[in-house]
Amino acid sequence: MSHTHALATFLADLQYEQIPDAVLARTEDLFLDWIGSALASQGARPIPLFERYAERMGPASGSARILVSARSTSPYFAALVNGASSHLVEQDDLHNSSVLHPATVVFSAVLAAAQDLNKSGKDLLLASVAGYEAGIRIGEFMGRSHYRIFHTTATVGTLAAAVGVGKLLGFDKEQFINLLGNAGTQAAGLWEFLRDAADSKQLHTAKAAADGLLAAYMTEDGLTGARNILEGEQGMAAGMSTDAEPARLSDRLGTRWALAETSFKFHASCRHTHPAADALLHLMQREGLRHDQIAKVVTRVHQGAIDVLGRVVKPATVHQAKFSMGAVLGLIAVHGSAQLIEFRDLALTDADVDAFREKVSMELDPEVDAAYPARWLGRVIVTTTDGRTLTAAIDDPKGDPGNTLSRPELEAKFQRLLAFSGARTQEQGKAIIDKVWHLRDAQQLADLI
Amino acid sequence: MSHTHALATFLADLQYEQIPDAVLARTEDLFLDWIGSALASQGARPIPLFERYAERMGPASGSARILVSARSTSPYFAALVNGASSHLVEQDDLHNSSVLHPATVVFSAVLAAAQDLNKSGKDLLLASVAGYEAGIRIGEFMGRSHYRIFHTTATVGTLAAAVGVGKLLGFDKEQFINLLGNAGTQAAGLWEFLRDAADSKQLHTAKAAADGLLAAYMTEDGLTGARNILEGEQGMAAGMSTDAEPARLSDRLGTRWALAETSFKFHASCRHTHPAADALLHLMQREGLRHDQIAKVVTRVHQGAIDVLGRVVKPATVHQAKFSMGAVLGLIAVHGSAQLIEFRDLALTDADVDAFREKVSMELDPEVDAAYPARWLGRVIVTTTDGRTLTAAIDDPKGDPGNTLSRPELEAKFQRLLAFSGARTQEQGKAIIDKVWHLRDAQQLADLI
Repeated sequence: MSHTHALATFLADLQYEQIPDAVLARTEDLFLDWIGSALASQGARPIPLFERYAERMGPASGSARILVSARSTSPYFAALVNGASSHLVEQDDLHNSSVLHPATVVFSAVLAAAQDLNKSGKDLLLASVAGYEAGIRIGEFMGRSHYRIFHTTATVGTLAAAVGVGKLLGFDKEQFINLLGNAGTQAAGLWEFLRDAADSKQLHTAKAAADGLLAAYMTEDGLTGARNILEGEQGMAAGMSTDAEPARLSDRLGTRWALAETSFKFHASCRHTHPAADALLHLMQREGLRHDQIAKVVTRVHQGAIDVLGRVVKPATVHQAKFSMGAVLGLIAVHGSAQLIEFRDLALTDADVDAFREKVSMELDPEVDAAYPARWLGRVIVTTTDGRTLTAAIDDPKGDPGNTLSRPELEAKFQRLLAFSGARTQEQGKAIIDKVWHLRDAQQLADLI
Repeated sequence: MSHTHALATFLADLQYEQIPDAVLARTEDLFLDWIGSALASQGARPIPLFERYAERMGPASGSARILVSARSTSPYFAALVNGASSHLVEQDDLHNSSVLHPATVVFSAVLAAAQDLNKSGKDLLLASVAGYEAGIRIGEFMGRSHYRIFHTTATVGTLAAAVGVGKLLGFDKEQFINLLGNAGTQAAGLWEFLRDAADSKQLHTAKAAADGLLAAYMTEDGLTGARNILEGEQGMAAGMSTDAEPARLSDRLGTRWALAETSFKFHASCRHTHPAADALLHLMQREGLRHDQIAKVVTRVHQGAIDVLGRVVKPATVHQAKFSMGAVLGLIAVHGSAQLIEFRDLALTDADVDAFREKVSMELDPEVDAAYPARWLGRVIVTTTDGRTLTAAIDDPKGDPGNTLSRPELEAKFQRLLAFSGARTQEQGKAIIDKVWHLRDAQQLADLI
């Protein structure tokens, strides 16, 4: 049996009862975190462009709901807008070894379809677990060579979203095989936009969620797809990877719960900056250093960090600042925090942050690179103004599975996200939190938010 | 100035008055051919699945029209369904050296947008020329390595469709640069489906047309894209080609009209079979041979033909028969014709065709391969049952620019396409022909069909 067939069999056979309680609870954690990420985007460009597109091309009302505006539309456009929204502020989750942000694609598609199909909270949890388990394994399969040029959350995200909706629709193995074909042949998304600080990241997650949903609905209606889209000679790996590992597709299916390995984002920046940010914060607290006592910071990083962050020299936008190792470490060093508020108010305008940014450089570290992407190690070498050389190392950045966020920490982060945009009051936030912590009992999801 | 900038400048500056009359006339020819191709698909799976998706996700009515059903919807879904429809019967046009089928993506997007935006026939012609000129050059730029794994009409087609709609929207150079970024980062479509005879080809052209339209509408609203999506280090060529030639992007802009190089399809099969089919027909007529006097046919072909056609040994569906060199040559040899009717009624069930199919093989021919994709040379070596070895060569398959279809031939083909599906009567067909031959005078396009 091919690895693709093994994966499809697992997805078809997966039962709610089979999923460990801790994994279900973690799915709820990730779901709350995703809602907060989406609501934090309210009013921020380019999200209104997606809302306008949905109004122009979609129905005046429908069976699914856009989170930020609470407007109803068809599930395709709900998935589109929610997919755009929930990745904007860079606070949504990340799975390390697949370099996939699963929530923004999986939940955006699954919630829209669950509302349309009148499914329960348990149905949503089961479908989301399926989407995460498939997406993470496919991301690992596609390998590092894929991520060098392709935005894995866009490409592989299309399949992850599709699988989630396929599970809601009760697909059997044959349907899952066709579904992977229909989703995989739509997989797209290139990193080229990063150097221009263009809006493509939102387009990528929007389209991955919406196209994944399209693949699932059309597969249910009978649209057939390539039976070997992942491993075939003219499939995804053949076209977009040079180091694909087919065995990753079926890695410990049913015993390894990859969803539970997903990291929460603590800092509001690109995940590639987090290990160094935590290491620098640790070093400054340990040594009692102020930012103006630091002359130089060398961050020792993996190649992927250089590929993604290396383009930005002086950030011109808040979004670009989140992809600038110097700007992120500047906020950490000067203000002790790199949350959304700091990025909005200080990242581009604070002279101290700007000065600190220029002290920061990245160097490839073979040990860090070898551990990546399974582990994201933080290593910094600081030279002080009085000539000392200090080092710090952290092995589990805050939010990683080995250093995860507790429910109170998640609730606080959720409320910070709502406060940032003003999309909902803290009281409304509390009500949402309560509903998500009781998701397993929800009979329907139309009025979740 | 980069080649991408040169292309964007050309697209922004292009004026209707600048386009030679013969090119405008050829655009009308191609447009009629595209309408016929779309109408020929009526009722055939998987087209109703796309119509159903449009009904489920789109508005109940709208400003653009689906050709096969004549239902109105929003332009996104009109482009989606018409894109699916117009490539189904494999009778739509092809540009040789780019290996792009421009009509199915460009006209599907441009007509939907032109109806929505209340544009004229002249506007549609100008926009379509822009889409063809850009799409063909981008296809040539991406090269043969791209086409080995990626379905160029799906990937590059997204940009061609986007450019057409962008021209309708009156984009300037900056908008075209962003548009290419927004379309290019959505470019997807893998050949893997071919061996399974899956429905992905329709999904590809549907999505290319619709996503191109999405890129243009959202670019108009201000969505920014990568400024170097074609040539950049993490762009389309970097990710999906190993032999990209940037100079092709700006090849003789304004003096070479690539649209006029587009071929019409005569046989109802994959274009890769046409040169050999014409050569065989020529040989049999020249020698007065019947099919049962032929023991063996070796077709000497380019590598692309082997890549695309080599998978199908014994066709299981009519669609697969169109990708079987043996089945196509069987229809030609036994029935003298490989039009839609022959494929439907004879390709899978006729014992003589089946027997002839097994006599046909493909061999790589260095001369044919070197000429491809600029020229599609037909070379066959026939061994007769009485032991003779005969050869034939044709350099311009019927429908190629050097051997194109006249307006009466195009009208006859158009009426055959309508008769095949019964989508319109011959009388209605005549009325459509008359409107297309007077497209330049049309003030609006809502009631074109």
